[in-house]
Amino acid sequence: MELLEQHILKEGYALPGNVLKVDSFLNHQIDPELSLKMGEEFAAHFSASHIDRVLTIEASGIAIGLTTALKLGVPLVFARKKKSILMTEETYSTEIYSYTKQETNMVSVLKNFLPAKENVLIIDDFLANGESALGLARLVEEAGSTVAGIGIVIEKSFQEGQKRLQAAGYDLYSLARIKSLDNCQIEFME
Amino acid sequence: MELLEQHILKEGYALPGNVLKVDSFLNHQIDPELSLKMGEEFAAHFSASHIDRVLTIEASGIAIGLTTALKLGVPLVFARKKKSILMTEETYSTEIYSYTKQETNMVSVLKNFLPAKENVLIIDDFLANGESALGLARLVEEAGSTVAGIGIVIEKSFQEGQKRLQAAGYDLYSLARIKSLDNCQIEFME
Repeated sequence: MELLEQHILKEGYALPGNVLKVDSFLNHQIDPELSLKMGEEFAAHFSASHIDRVLTIEASGIAIGLTTALKLGVPLVFARKKKSILMTEETYSTEIYSYTKQETNMVSVLKNFLPAKENVLIIDDFLANGESALGLARLVEEAGSTVAGIGIVIEKSFQEGQKRLQAAGYDLYSLARIKSLDNCQIEFME
Repeated sequence: MELLEQHILKEGYALPGNVLKVDSFLNHQIDPELSLKMGEEFAAHFSASHIDRVLTIEASGIAIGLTTALKLGVPLVFARKKKSILMTEETYSTEIYSYTKQETNMVSVLKNFLPAKENVLIIDDFLANGESALGLARLVEEAGSTVAGIGIVIEKSFQEGQKRLQAAGYDLYSLARIKSLDNCQIEFME
């Protein structure tokens, strides 16, 4: 998605250790118009499948999950990393390791909000090693539903995530695909 | 806001201990259309002030913060409860106690994304004791900016928050005001 690549080149920057900082428009400060356009792009791409709901994970997935769900006309559900004491009903839960926070979170979704026999679109901001997307897919499948697709804003194509998702047979669509961050230079896939 | 009150009466329910559960449309599963309409309502209400940005807190504030910022045509920033290891720049930070999670979080915003001399609209999903809204207001003021207003989706008017915000002189606008949850009955303010 060219508009996104322009934002990444203009506002993002690469740091040593294959880190791409895009917190001025994606995951701390958020550009609402860009979020809306990205949601439109995901909705258009996955519109051939019937989608029943969008699933993402707090916190950085919520904005882009919301605009996607808005355009698809379906509910959004976000997996929680920490249970509220109000979450007393039964949940689907799985462990997800975060490399950027260096911790493992038990993420949970109330069973009520992840019914069986649905087609669920998973949306997330980043794909690196695939931990988050694969964790969300486990929740969908544990619920007896189908992963209709996985939409990612920024894929680090040089890491393992995209291979792992494709090997597992998921329909992956990434709006920007980073070929390399070597020498702190941002290079996109052709 | 009548549409919101209808949703609360239809899908929400009260539990002992003055708890109102609205996780089927507001803070776990999210109704995108309703979020958009609530954002429109906040934007319309606060449009008399010039707003430079919207500030909220992860995770439940992000959806409604986003739709408000979208309608106002300004950026959204969300305060983080846990610093990413990528958040190496200087931050404004303050402690906020969560009654529903029974923990104190140090919440932070990168200084870059909370500049001085702006008019900042604070948006949050719930107002109970006012801890979260007052904490966000401290961040805005520490940054040398002005709290243009505080927009709340659901105010528990029988708790201290609204009095504390008004005593501090903030322009508070709540889309639904709950007078009482006694005997697990939801009663709105007139």
